[in-house]
Amino acid sequence: MPERLLSQLAHVEIVTPDLEASTRFYVDVLGLEASGRAGDSVYLRGWGDFFHHTLQLTAGDGPALGHIAWRSEGPEQLQTAVARIEETGRGEGWYEGSVGHGPAYRYRSPGGHLHEVFWEVERYQAPPELASPFPNRPQRYVPRGAAVRCIDHVTVSTADPEGDAHWFRETLGHRFMEYTVIPDRPDFVVFGMTTVCERGHDLGLVWDPSPVPARVNHFAYFVDSREELLRAADVLLNAGVAIEFGPGKHGMGEQDYVYFREPSGMRVELNAGGYRNYEPDWEVVRYEPQQGSNVFYKNLGMPHSMFESFPPVEFKPEDAQEAQAATGLFT
Amino acid sequence: MPERLLSQLAHVEIVTPDLEASTRFYVDVLGLEASGRAGDSVYLRGWGDFFHHTLQLTAGDGPALGHIAWRSEGPEQLQTAVARIEETGRGEGWYEGSVGHGPAYRYRSPGGHLHEVFWEVERYQAPPELASPFPNRPQRYVPRGAAVRCIDHVTVSTADPEGDAHWFRETLGHRFMEYTVIPDRPDFVVFGMTTVCERGHDLGLVWDPSPVPARVNHFAYFVDSREELLRAADVLLNAGVAIEFGPGKHGMGEQDYVYFREPSGMRVELNAGGYRNYEPDWEVVRYEPQQGSNVFYKNLGMPHSMFESFPPVEFKPEDAQEAQAATGLFT
Amino acid sequence: MPERLLSQLAHVEIVTPDLEASTRFYVDVLGLEASGRAGDSVYLRGWGDFFHHTLQLTAGDGPALGHIAWRSEGPEQLQTAVARIEETGRGEGWYEGSVGHGPAYRYRSPGGHLHEVFWEVERYQAPPELASPFPNRPQRYVPRGAAVRCIDHVTVSTADPEGDAHWFRETLGHRFMEYTVIPDRPDFVVFGMTTVCERGHDLGLVWDPSPVPARVNHFAYFVDSREELLRAADVLLNAGVAIEFGPGKHGMGEQDYVYFREPSGMRVELNAGGYRNYEPDWEVVRYEPQQGSNVFYKNLGMPHSMFESFPPVEFKPEDAQEAQAATGLFT
Amino acid sequence: MPERLLSQLAHVEIVTPDLEASTRFYVDVLGLEASGRAGDSVYLRGWGDFFHHTLQLTAGDGPALGHIAWRSEGPEQLQTAVARIEETGRGEGWYEGSVGHGPAYRYRSPGGHLHEVFWEVERYQAPPELASPFPNRPQRYVPRGAAVRCIDHVTVSTADPEGDAHWFRETLGHRFMEYTVIPDRPDFVVFGMTTVCERGHDLGLVWDPSPVPARVNHFAYFVDSREELLRAADVLLNAGVAIEFGPGKHGMGEQDYVYFREPSGMRVELNAGGYRNYEPDWEVVRYEPQQGSNVFYKNLGMPHSMFESFPPVEFKPEDAQEAQAATGLFT
Repeated sequence: MPERLLSQLAHVEIVTPDLEASTRFYVDVLGLEASGRAGDSVYLRGWGDFFHHTLQLTAGDGPALGHIAWRSEGPEQLQTAVARIEETGRGEGWYEGSVGHGPAYRYRSPGGHLHEVFWEVERYQAPPELASPFPNRPQRYVPRGAAVRCIDHVTVSTADPEGDAHWFRETLGHRFMEYTVIPDRPDFVVFGMTTVCERGHDLGLVWDPSPVPARVNHFAYFVDSREELLRAADVLLNAGVAIEFGPGKHGMGEQDYVYFREPSGMRVELNAGGYRNYEPDWEVVRYEPQQGSNVFYKNLGMPHSMFESFPPVEFKPEDAQEAQAATGLFT
Repeated sequence: MPERLLSQLAHVEIVTPDLEASTRFYVDVLGLEASGRAGDSVYLRGWGDFFHHTLQLTAGDGPALGHIAWRSEGPEQLQTAVARIEETGRGEGWYEGSVGHGPAYRYRSPGGHLHEVFWEVERYQAPPELASPFPNRPQRYVPRGAAVRCIDHVTVSTADPEGDAHWFRETLGHRFMEYTVIPDRPDFVVFGMTTVCERGHDLGLVWDPSPVPARVNHFAYFVDSREELLRAADVLLNAGVAIEFGPGKHGMGEQDYVYFREPSGMRVELNAGGYRNYEPDWEVVRYEPQQGSNVFYKNLGMPHSMFESFPPVEFKPEDAQEAQAATGLFT
Repeated sequence: MPERLLSQLAHVEIVTPDLEASTRFYVDVLGLEASGRAGDSVYLRGWGDFFHHTLQLTAGDGPALGHIAWRSEGPEQLQTAVARIEETGRGEGWYEGSVGHGPAYRYRSPGGHLHEVFWEVERYQAPPELASPFPNRPQRYVPRGAAVRCIDHVTVSTADPEGDAHWFRETLGHRFMEYTVIPDRPDFVVFGMTTVCERGHDLGLVWDPSPVPARVNHFAYFVDSREELLRAADVLLNAGVAIEFGPGKHGMGEQDYVYFREPSGMRVELNAGGYRNYEPDWEVVRYEPQQGSNVFYKNLGMPHSMFESFPPVEFKPEDAQEAQAATGLFT
Repeated sequence: MPERLLSQLAHVEIVTPDLEASTRFYVDVLGLEASGRAGDSVYLRGWGDFFHHTLQLTAGDGPALGHIAWRSEGPEQLQTAVARIEETGRGEGWYEGSVGHGPAYRYRSPGGHLHEVFWEVERYQAPPELASPFPNRPQRYVPRGAAVRCIDHVTVSTADPEGDAHWFRETLGHRFMEYTVIPDRPDFVVFGMTTVCERGHDLGLVWDPSPVPARVNHFAYFVDSREELLRAADVLLNAGVAIEFGPGKHGMGEQDYVYFREPSGMRVELNAGGYRNYEPDWEVVRYEPQQGSNVFYKNLGMPHSMFESFPPVEFKPEDAQEAQAATGLFT
């Protein structure tokens, strides 16, 4: 097997048109912790995240994806990763001066999404009043709202989920774990999951029939148990936040989920559970929707709104229905 | 960082003086699935384990550890691992003809325990009546007893937990995650945890003051939630199995636990939860017992019986108390 | 307040056209315990049910409701209850010779359903091999399948849920806890819940637009936690049983639910959780569907199939849609 | 059976020497909601409690029990209860002008504890910003700290638990559910549980060998799941509150528990789960400690500190050990 190059999903940058409203939501309702503010960005993390931040909120035209950051397995592996990316012609060069980590090499995946990879990272240092009574936790546990623990994954929208997955696998060693096909086009992958860790995915790839590149469908934080996920849904409803989809359980990855929107309109997911898989030579699993790919209980489709990615594209119901018919994802 | 060489803990071999009684316990009470029988051994796995087996039960003088098996990250990494082991002079040579996997290189860690590493592995193939309705699971879920899902870790007993941990880290790239010291000897590690995955440990190292090498303290299976762990404790009590320790939660690793004995006298643990850590350069965390290293709730010591490792050494209560006083682990 | 007359829902009789298939399902998949067989009936109970049985399965034209049995608060209260029932003209007389309990007075509620009330009851006596190691449990806990603990409620179908609820309250002291109205007829109760205990309901009343009296929509067993409910759904799917609706959480009563069918076609529900309410003068709560009456998360309607009651009436899709439009329950 | 007279445990009054510190603890760490303040008292309730308050904190010499309040089954039942109490000579007369409820009749149980019973009660009315989006909940769910839902029980200390239990049963219809005896005095009840609801107890009676009457051991609030109980323990530890005992599960009543102290030194318990029992003629269950009466897992004794009741009596370790030896409760 090729050497492992990436150690983990490090953070996601999300662009929001209302930085203050979004920040309040993540802090007050989801319970993220503030790590600082610089330029047009606010930096946030879950109480159990070890790094300086796992979410960078940036003011701008949005909702949209800024970039996705990965930490390499080590300094040599960073160099190897850069060389491999450059061979594919998708490199954009080094980016210095990031908050919370060292030099990052930026690149665009085939779907047009901006990624970066770095090695040097700043660990979160809790101030004395937040020092943890447990030496292995980055900070004291003082839950607020949903009190999410740590980042889980990001799911981007792309014209060719399978092609992207192969590019990630061959270039950087992401494992291609599972995919869903559509009934009428049994060779077309409408959703794929890749991972650099033990979970079914830290990067999701969902089919985007629109002509707009580099869109994002959602990103996700993790809570420690299904019970905490259900408690989070109660917190959200009582905070006036509509639940878009769930709570439920995905067949693919076996994670429990709940989806909702933050004030910018961006979709956020919370997860719990999921299987653990450690096989470098894992053979990708093919799912058909009726096997429970999305809804483990096999009795629900997704609501049409889940088809929307960001930035939003003008919505034609007939297109949605066509896509829906095509994918079978929403039946 | 050095290249990653091991991908996962693959299985544990346990020696039992009563193969039939032990097998019945693992199958009927813990809910393991039988994978076959060959020679003096029975092969077992959790319903969610992907490989041919994760537990090999072998008839013999016991209870005792047979060996611990690791899967490499790939075929090249297997060769690298072997070369590194041979440099330390601890190699014992290749072992062919194992059930369920290809050629394995065997070695003894400093504590005298027998390990092996291999790459080629046989995946479990469910017979038709056990075929899973979910493509990503190795078999149908038909829970029996505690219905454990997959192997979690093994904890061996050794004269020098810290020295062993360093050997595993430097030779094979195990990460050294956390350790506990004792109040009167703040530089002496009485318990250490190493891992090749995201959890706090897949290999535990507990101080053994006895002169007997290569003993084992326990090994562990995983269930999907704390609720399943508590349900398992109820199942055990109703099956007439005493609970030795727990249910509770460890501070180190943040895993929920319950300990008990199988018919051979061997200690078995069930786990749920635990943190997820992906940092190749994680700086080992130092715990003192009163910080909740063992009991997260900081209000209990372990019972003295937990000090017993396998094969048992003649028990002198005063020695136990001395060791206890020395370690502070049981206060 | 009037004296309390009923102490609990005691059992439900369900008629099935295939007694053997239904029995196997309840025993093997739901994990009910067999209490005996007499005539055309099989008697079953959850492992935590204290009485001889909580489910009587009877061979016959079905699926259908046989009868619903309540235990009185005492022998005097039984006499008072009978007198009250007779005043309403709905009594059918005493029924002797029941299995598992003493003389029962039978009556028909306004919806035509057959009920009975008795005081003398036979407690389940476990045989030695099933004797509980805990003195307060009726039997040893040896879980099988979903391993349901005890009966929860029965939901009948009736032309006038509100009228029936008032009859139960005024005649026998059931508390009328909550109801749902429909958007276009805000004074028409399409679903009502009454209780003689601390939960939101042990008797549900759902609007039945069909001309067939005395139908039943479903009955339910209880498991100890939401986690056990989700585990039960996994067990069902792996046993080849489709999940009709859920897992989810009702706003009314705050119970977690999952619905499915047994081999006769009869709908069965499992519940966990729920609020606890002890107020004799509780003022009935009015719910509109969009407030989460059925789906606490406010983002789902029931599938049309949930509209079906038993015995089934010939199904006209347009009628279902009409009823659906009328009730708003399925949007 | 005699008519049921009491419908529920309504509230507990606790005396604390530091009203402000205790109030901050209950509000900030346990998450109780403030209902008002009058005279030397602060009134509090869980977010799911329907009445004006379930906890009255009063400044004074403490920690100690003020009084225990029960709501009657109705206005007639209140009169019947008063007549019955007066027949026993334990009545203390009517008490008017309480905050949150109507006229209360006060009485002292044989153990000297002050109780009251009333019918008229003030329901909590949420201000607009706390109005619940769910019509059946008394207020919006905005969890803070442990976020306890509602009152559960109170456990008093008395020289004769069995005698007291009989008095409550015969006078007011409390059900006597379970008791524990001691090995050397198998006829002496050291702990008894009575209830007016479906749980194993809303009133506990623990043996008090001291000469001080009317002491209290602890009182308890309820959370919706074991997972919430474990989360609460994490919250407490991170707030610097030591866990005195637990988290664990009692055999008697099958409730999950965790015990700790509020700033006054008073012991508070949190509960989850528990069986449901509806039998008016339930025959009291006898437990011996080794059957898991206190610790369901049968592998732990209580810490000696749990023996302490309030107000504290000067502590002689040898007496504690004697009592411990006598009761076997702490082995």
